[in-house]
Amino acid sequence: MPQISKRGTAMPSSPIRKLVPYADGAKARGTKVYHLNIGQPDIPTPPQFMEAVKAADIPVLSYSHSQGIPSVQNKFIEYYRRIGIPLTPKNLLVTTGGSEALNFAFLAAVDLGDEVIIPEPFYANYNGFSIATGAHVVPITTRLEDNFDLPEIEEFEKLITARTRAILICNPSNPTGKLYTKEALLKLRDLVLKHDLFLVVDEVYREFVYDGEQHVSALTLEGLEQHVIVVDSISKRYSACGARIGNIVSYNEGIIATALKAAQARLSPPTLAQLGAEAVIDVEPAYFTNVKAEYVARRDALVRLLRDIPGTVVPQASGAFYLTVRLPVDNTETFCRWMLESFSYEGATVMMAPAAGFYATPGLGLDEVRIAYVLNQADLEKAMGCLAEGLKVYPGSKIATATAESN
Amino acid sequence: MPQISKRGTAMPSSPIRKLVPYADGAKARGTKVYHLNIGQPDIPTPPQFMEAVKAADIPVLSYSHSQGIPSVQNKFIEYYRRIGIPLTPKNLLVTTGGSEALNFAFLAAVDLGDEVIIPEPFYANYNGFSIATGAHVVPITTRLEDNFDLPEIEEFEKLITARTRAILICNPSNPTGKLYTKEALLKLRDLVLKHDLFLVVDEVYREFVYDGEQHVSALTLEGLEQHVIVVDSISKRYSACGARIGNIVSYNEGIIATALKAAQARLSPPTLAQLGAEAVIDVEPAYFTNVKAEYVARRDALVRLLRDIPGTVVPQASGAFYLTVRLPVDNTETFCRWMLESFSYEGATVMMAPAAGFYATPGLGLDEVRIAYVLNQADLEKAMGCLAEGLKVYPGSKIATATAESN
Repeated sequence: MPQISKRGTAMPSSPIRKLVPYADGAKARGTKVYHLNIGQPDIPTPPQFMEAVKAADIPVLSYSHSQGIPSVQNKFIEYYRRIGIPLTPKNLLVTTGGSEALNFAFLAAVDLGDEVIIPEPFYANYNGFSIATGAHVVPITTRLEDNFDLPEIEEFEKLITARTRAILICNPSNPTGKLYTKEALLKLRDLVLKHDLFLVVDEVYREFVYDGEQHVSALTLEGLEQHVIVVDSISKRYSACGARIGNIVSYNEGIIATALKAAQARLSPPTLAQLGAEAVIDVEPAYFTNVKAEYVARRDALVRLLRDIPGTVVPQASGAFYLTVRLPVDNTETFCRWMLESFSYEGATVMMAPAAGFYATPGLGLDEVRIAYVLNQADLEKAMGCLAEGLKVYPGSKIATATAESN
Repeated sequence: MPQISKRGTAMPSSPIRKLVPYADGAKARGTKVYHLNIGQPDIPTPPQFMEAVKAADIPVLSYSHSQGIPSVQNKFIEYYRRIGIPLTPKNLLVTTGGSEALNFAFLAAVDLGDEVIIPEPFYANYNGFSIATGAHVVPITTRLEDNFDLPEIEEFEKLITARTRAILICNPSNPTGKLYTKEALLKLRDLVLKHDLFLVVDEVYREFVYDGEQHVSALTLEGLEQHVIVVDSISKRYSACGARIGNIVSYNEGIIATALKAAQARLSPPTLAQLGAEAVIDVEPAYFTNVKAEYVARRDALVRLLRDIPGTVVPQASGAFYLTVRLPVDNTETFCRWMLESFSYEGATVMMAPAAGFYATPGLGLDEVRIAYVLNQADLEKAMGCLAEGLKVYPGSKIATATAESN
């Protein structure tokens, strides 16, 4: 029998999805599972999306332009203009989700075996894309105790070699909720310029910024125009994850022209979802006001509930809809599986993503989980109730020690 | 400024799409362009597709399972059962078009620098996927004079090295319309078994087989179960190219499990299009009877019209909806561009795909074009009228010589 490829074998399973069989088992036993493991919000998709799809008269569902339907491409350009980023069609392609945008960024910027520095913990699928595109991930560790601040720029510089081609960040961050300040971005800019690197920035959570903070897009960093590649998506912005529509943006026209060649090879992004995307970009500003208020309320509730559980450590986080927190357990992978396999409280349990899968350095994040606050407050409260009860009886719990220490 | 990656620079533009700016120029001058350059049929998508999408009640457009919505995955399994190929969910994933299915096949079967033998001319985007996934294409030439028959199996065997991992064919073939016989497939089987390779088969034109011939799926080749990976798509089958729904199939469960990891990294295929795909797979059998009759009539008309033009060579072809033919010109790339830039007849011109882009060996196919018979007979007739007139006046035409020779 021919062998599976080495890279295919090396590709990790998604830490966000790999506990799914245990969740399915819990559901089969009649246990309700609160899904805090995946960034799938319960926020309604603005109705404009489906209205546009349903209004379309499509006798032949044909390919679109590889760079996206021109009116959709222009609608994205309009969106960026509204947030102060002027673009032309040479700066932006419509992609099949943010995932494909990142894939195109890697193809255009990075050769096989080249290195990409990524602060860890990071969105676990960056590993998959790296392996698929032959890039080598070089992690730089950020710490829960420091609220996942970026390390000193000297620490970044130590990791730069002749093969380093790019630094990749997610701002605000999945999985930590960290929002990087303009100051932090300017330090990265100087380093990127000094070593003539690309700065790839995943900004799919751009709108989800709280506590009066402002999001600074890397596309606005002066002097860095030829270096920045932004990966974007409508998935989170309009709660339209299943559309699979994103975009890649760069003032470096060579990057976009190269991405277009990759885009031609896969022909076109999904046509129907593009129609929905075009309509939803015009959603009234009140939509974001309401959605942000909802996420802030959830985050505040979640932080309060988590901090009430002895032994947890909950960092400050002003963006996205994730928290990466420490739990008083031996190992969160074992714990999360145990919660699904062996525990329920009032007929329910909770599913979280063990954080080790978000670190590239082995042994890190073993007592951390990523929690996505994608459920309403009432459900979050019940889920945290389950978690608190689970921690009391889990065999690997350190809650007794933690309580003793805090006394 | 940081450099574009070497592989990105090496990635070819699509030969099918690269003349688009000249076609746009012709249209801007008011010239009608008959598009025979791209496999975008004018056949209506069965109405079930859009009806299912429009009937859907989707308050939150969420991710689906990475392997596809279970009911969609099962509907594909049902489709294969009907054509005599029994599968389980461990043998099939729903993908974002056939393009992604091929990408997953390469990731799972081939490591960086490994070799894949592909009969040329081949679907040009195989080049893009190879560069993107770091595979090395080794072409084996098939000839227009031989109706693009596969070369003797000894010729294949000469190309096998320690790095050969797979043979890739498209059956029936884009761009030649060639249907491979069971006999030819059995010879490939023996070779694949002897050298423990994968056989990747693009079967997206499976239904489009004419002249009383039968399509033999590689999935039915006895003894080859662990070696065959089939790439498939609804794009052509149901004239739903813009859906971007395909699938990858293999009895080798390791291949599908590996593809699933790549599928998890990109999260899920487009949700709306999956709903349409699920509905359209149940289209009444009369749909294919009619569509096939239409393609046969077109092909017959096209072959007749082409053979009426002095100096053309038109091979026999029993499948798909393409012909690769020889034209009496110096260079088809120059000619096709000239047809768009400098020629019109009765207010119209015709766009074809120069065949050189479908060959990996430099210098081959320079006097060949791929013609997709995706327009109705009346339009095909007008298009061939344009072509005949164009050949009379094109400066690089060899039609005079050809006519003299045939006298």
